[in-house]
Amino acid sequence: MATLTLQNSIRLRSTPYKKQIEKHGVSGYSVVNHTILPKGFKRSAEEDYWHLKEHVQLWDVGCQRQVELKGPDAAHLVELMTPRDLGTAKVGQCFYAPVVDQKGGMLNDPIILKLKDDQYWLSISDSDLLLWAKGLVYGLGLDVEVDEPDVWPMAVQGPKAERLVSKVFGGVVESIRFFEFSRIAFHGHPLIIARSGFSKQGGFEIYLDRPELGEALWATLWEAGQALDVAPGCPNLIERIEGGLLSYGNEMTSADTPFECGLERFCQIDKQSDFIGRTALQEVRAAGPKKSIRGVKFGSDPCPPCGSRWPLRVGDKAVGYMTSAAWSPRFQANVGLAMIDRDYWDEGRKLMVDIEATETVNGYVTRLPM
Amino acid sequence: MATLTLQNSIRLRSTPYKKQIEKHGVSGYSVVNHTILPKGFKRSAEEDYWHLKEHVQLWDVGCQRQVELKGPDAAHLVELMTPRDLGTAKVGQCFYAPVVDQKGGMLNDPIILKLKDDQYWLSISDSDLLLWAKGLVYGLGLDVEVDEPDVWPMAVQGPKAERLVSKVFGGVVESIRFFEFSRIAFHGHPLIIARSGFSKQGGFEIYLDRPELGEALWATLWEAGQALDVAPGCPNLIERIEGGLLSYGNEMTSADTPFECGLERFCQIDKQSDFIGRTALQEVRAAGPKKSIRGVKFGSDPCPPCGSRWPLRVGDKAVGYMTSAAWSPRFQANVGLAMIDRDYWDEGRKLMVDIEATETVNGYVTRLPM
Repeated sequence: MATLTLQNSIRLRSTPYKKQIEKHGVSGYSVVNHTILPKGFKRSAEEDYWHLKEHVQLWDVGCQRQVELKGPDAAHLVELMTPRDLGTAKVGQCFYAPVVDQKGGMLNDPIILKLKDDQYWLSISDSDLLLWAKGLVYGLGLDVEVDEPDVWPMAVQGPKAERLVSKVFGGVVESIRFFEFSRIAFHGHPLIIARSGFSKQGGFEIYLDRPELGEALWATLWEAGQALDVAPGCPNLIERIEGGLLSYGNEMTSADTPFECGLERFCQIDKQSDFIGRTALQEVRAAGPKKSIRGVKFGSDPCPPCGSRWPLRVGDKAVGYMTSAAWSPRFQANVGLAMIDRDYWDEGRKLMVDIEATETVNGYVTRLPM
Repeated sequence: MATLTLQNSIRLRSTPYKKQIEKHGVSGYSVVNHTILPKGFKRSAEEDYWHLKEHVQLWDVGCQRQVELKGPDAAHLVELMTPRDLGTAKVGQCFYAPVVDQKGGMLNDPIILKLKDDQYWLSISDSDLLLWAKGLVYGLGLDVEVDEPDVWPMAVQGPKAERLVSKVFGGVVESIRFFEFSRIAFHGHPLIIARSGFSKQGGFEIYLDRPELGEALWATLWEAGQALDVAPGCPNLIERIEGGLLSYGNEMTSADTPFECGLERFCQIDKQSDFIGRTALQEVRAAGPKKSIRGVKFGSDPCPPCGSRWPLRVGDKAVGYMTSAAWSPRFQANVGLAMIDRDYWDEGRKLMVDIEATETVNGYVTRLPM
């Protein structure tokens, strides 16, 4: 199932950057939030990996849809939706936040942008969080408008990202701190620009809310990046795994609590505001999670993509499962993210990986980031 | 963007029929409900179309996920979620039902299966309806368990479907009426089998709740179908358009009410039970919908896939947009589904279609099914 053809339809939404990424020779797509996400261009994932770590890339991440919460009860609702304490949140800040149900199960892990005291965007991973928010608003009778605004993020990622974004938007971007955002004009229209992104190499995400400016935005950044060896790119699986960045639907589902995903530091479960799932998470904290996500290095030949949960074993004992995997040119080994039982999750622990039920290779547990 | 490569990951779930469909030479996939959906095999869509209308096909529709509502308040919740009157619903019946929000906007159009008086499955189209149901249950404090059970539907479609399913499950299937289901044993395990499916050619959907039986189920039907010219298949775009079967995300979104989708006959908005969106739908009914979905025949050369809303015009006036389109070998014309303003939706009305902003062809409005 390595190579499949994705069919074209309105239901699988295109982005305002479509013509540009086609011109760059996009070679594959994934689907996130009913929207296409480029998964590669002319270079291999390994070449892209080195490029991302050394230069700067433009990413079409229009699939990062926004759930807008707006109205008198918006702040109350956003607190209800996450165990993260947003009590001191300021306008202009971003917050990575687990969203959980009453059992503490992960429903999404958005970045929350506080636009105003009564207006938030939840920049979501792959589930229709809009419907959860709408259901809560209806059921609880809250005064909040819940919508998906017409916003199409693009990301500029890599060590030269600040230089590139400064060239286009001015030196003011240098004052944007990590996980903060400013509004900066482009073609006379203020765009939200945040220092964030789905890589560990640094960079910015630009929240384009004027789709008709998409081609100009891409083209302007592309032009300005020529002297910086800019390239088209996309979230890089190798870099993501080494950096310990989780992907909803891969590493975690609603069957997992934030504690099992290593997201304790984003949970203040004794926070003053009410939130859904407090009792469940208090129980998990008291007992301690029985499993958690760890890194694994394994094998000396490149593994196939991880399309199903590969069992991890110590002898005959099942001790967890792999959720994402790729060959790392830096470590000359496969790297993976895996959910591992607590008796076996210590760094350095040796285990065996059953790859696609056809091959078994040796590996060991690593810390994250690797 | 006609040919794209779909990347492999756990997030894009495979089905229990994966090995079988790969063996049959699946040539393309779509993604529905975070699950892969085969979109073609070795034959062209036109060959598949004729085959579906004459013989029998096996479809992997594991992407039709089930939202289970179970508990003392399940019947109340299911009534709340749809304008369709389920007051006289009996166990063993299926109901195509618009699910709408408080503005009357379509959130999904599932088939509802009444399993018990306090247990329902909503067999969904492409949105996480589970999250809407969970939000309502939490907010309203209802006593309902909301879950996605481990169920992987497969469909047997085409005029010979009854003969094939009878060969495997016995003559008892002949007594299953349209949109009803029975439980029939396979390998000693009772499977829900309904007379339903996403084609107008007749057939059955088998709700496999033992994924480990998936390969045997497919193989048994395949073997029994050899004398009937069975083939692997999938929802056929040409047949779907001609039959007027809507696809959530293509023909309709939350911006549309059921009245605008031609789904009035599934709305009893004066029904006794409370439901969400009643006031909004009463207003739409009173004013009459301003647009609705109609068929369109257009052009004499095969059009590309409809990946964006193609404008419909009468002279310079914008009168609607195309949402799905394909070349019909039966009509020797393109056929499409389109949202058309009410002043222009009468059968036979001539209009122009701007295909992908590059070409304009003549067409006219048709009734549905064509």
